[in-house]
Amino acid sequence: MSGDDGHLTPSDLRDILSFTTALARAAGELILEGSDAILASGTVDEKKNSVDLVTEYDVRVEELVKDTLGKSYPLFKFIGEESYAAGSRPALTDEPTFCVDPIDGTTNFVHGFPHVCISIGLIYQKVPVLGVVYNPFLDQLYTGVKGQGAYLIRKNGALRIQLPLAKPTHLASLSKGLLGIEWGSDRSGPIIEAKGESFKRLAGDPKAGVEKGQMAHSLRSLGSAALNFCMVAQGGLDLYWEIGCWPWDVCAGIVIAQEAGGFISGSKTSPLNNIASDDVLAGRKHIVVRAIGDSETEKGVDAQKRLIKEFYETVEDFQPV
Amino acid sequence: MSGDDGHLTPSDLRDILSFTTALARAAGELILEGSDAILASGTVDEKKNSVDLVTEYDVRVEELVKDTLGKSYPLFKFIGEESYAAGSRPALTDEPTFCVDPIDGTTNFVHGFPHVCISIGLIYQKVPVLGVVYNPFLDQLYTGVKGQGAYLIRKNGALRIQLPLAKPTHLASLSKGLLGIEWGSDRSGPIIEAKGESFKRLAGDPKAGVEKGQMAHSLRSLGSAALNFCMVAQGGLDLYWEIGCWPWDVCAGIVIAQEAGGFISGSKTSPLNNIASDDVLAGRKHIVVRAIGDSETEKGVDAQKRLIKEFYETVEDFQPV
Repeated sequence: MSGDDGHLTPSDLRDILSFTTALARAAGELILEGSDAILASGTVDEKKNSVDLVTEYDVRVEELVKDTLGKSYPLFKFIGEESYAAGSRPALTDEPTFCVDPIDGTTNFVHGFPHVCISIGLIYQKVPVLGVVYNPFLDQLYTGVKGQGAYLIRKNGALRIQLPLAKPTHLASLSKGLLGIEWGSDRSGPIIEAKGESFKRLAGDPKAGVEKGQMAHSLRSLGSAALNFCMVAQGGLDLYWEIGCWPWDVCAGIVIAQEAGGFISGSKTSPLNNIASDDVLAGRKHIVVRAIGDSETEKGVDAQKRLIKEFYETVEDFQPV
Repeated sequence: MSGDDGHLTPSDLRDILSFTTALARAAGELILEGSDAILASGTVDEKKNSVDLVTEYDVRVEELVKDTLGKSYPLFKFIGEESYAAGSRPALTDEPTFCVDPIDGTTNFVHGFPHVCISIGLIYQKVPVLGVVYNPFLDQLYTGVKGQGAYLIRKNGALRIQLPLAKPTHLASLSKGLLGIEWGSDRSGPIIEAKGESFKRLAGDPKAGVEKGQMAHSLRSLGSAALNFCMVAQGGLDLYWEIGCWPWDVCAGIVIAQEAGGFISGSKTSPLNNIASDDVLAGRKHIVVRAIGDSETEKGVDAQKRLIKEFYETVEDFQPV
């Protein structure tokens, strides 16, 4: 690779994609092993409870990924939960930086709810340029490389479908949408109030007494930010919004969604330019809309921006903990 | 089969299971075909919009299932959406009665959100005794036969695992639970208020100002009642509650959950006896708790009843439309 002068070519990105895809599969095997251990923990060894096991496998998967990446890409930087653990947020540089969540959907992982994945992202010149998200439980491997498209790969590569799965239709309003939302981990009074109120408005029927009601087709919660981004990329969700995610939860998913024609943004006040700048990536507020086809009167990209505005006019903003 | 005298033996049920499993797979193929047609509808033929296509495939799958069952089991009765369409609710008899939802998760189906299934249940002597639920998108085939266990079958039968997937652990309180909830289709003011308030209590932290807060591990919404029952059977959800389902949404799932050690009930005032009587089956209010292991001080079945009581003390009751 041409890492010598620090410049990443499209060919370099293809090589990194092959490498990280194989690594994601290896990590997936370890996640499955961890799941078996957790499911068995109720029976074999009462000393090891499931929370310890989650931590153990979280660390083991992170070590596997970090070590493997470090050996092949020694000059690349690495951002993960540990990078933030000390309380300081490292500023992004122009250099290639892996941004990894070893196990996204840890609550699901504990419970054996099969929406769990490894998420490997790569940031370059301060924006996400490559993402691999793999859910080994449901055989869903998603990839995206800037300028090279996004794919869903199943059956060990026998099925490789470019995303979105179908030519994008138009979306006239939130009322026609299937929306991804999450209850998250911050559950104090003001936050649960803001979330609950927002969700009620999204679901509620304005013609039947719900103020600000959007009457969306429905709301879904899978419990994994990375997989939600991928589901939007696939076209299975029209929009996903969450306050509280970290860069490693969303980095890979952002590229996959963007390469599938999706439009991403940050908070209500972020510029609507579909750029995952540092402020958006690390801003703890994320929204993504699927690829939308042009209508006779509105271009798809204008519809994406309009829907984000409509969405933010509906929900309540709050600060994550 | 011994249908001549109207009596169903365990061996008869095994035969019916083989038959309905094959039928569910055939229905699954048709559902996949329908999904392709819906995904393509944005491009090929603007005259057929996706809602028409959903209705078309809903009818086609129902016809396939009804005709196939009718030919092989001419004496069995059949309950489906049509049976209720005229506005009258037919009383259950002791005779074998198929109870079928051709496509459970139709909103998901429209959007290409891959949690969609065919659900085939059999009622005998007024209780569900057999269930087959098949999601062709994620290769999840669930079966349950009264007295004969519940199974998750994948990879075309190569993987056949008895449910629940692991020996059941104890569950001390709702705060340790991953709970299945749904926004449903009734979105008028009072109902959305009752649901939203209930969900906030389930998710909210009582130590941080949420009245009646249970601080569950989290809440999940997949959008298919049948698959929610199966996820509880599998152990991936600890509990699932919904007001508004019809018998065909839940009939198959009830058997699968019960055979996996789950405990089902109806409304807040239903007797806690794990019997899906006509009142429970058709009562539009359903709750199911996963198999729970004994602790040193509490039997699993007592924990199941306690959790249902705790749950109903937390959420608001309401009447479905």
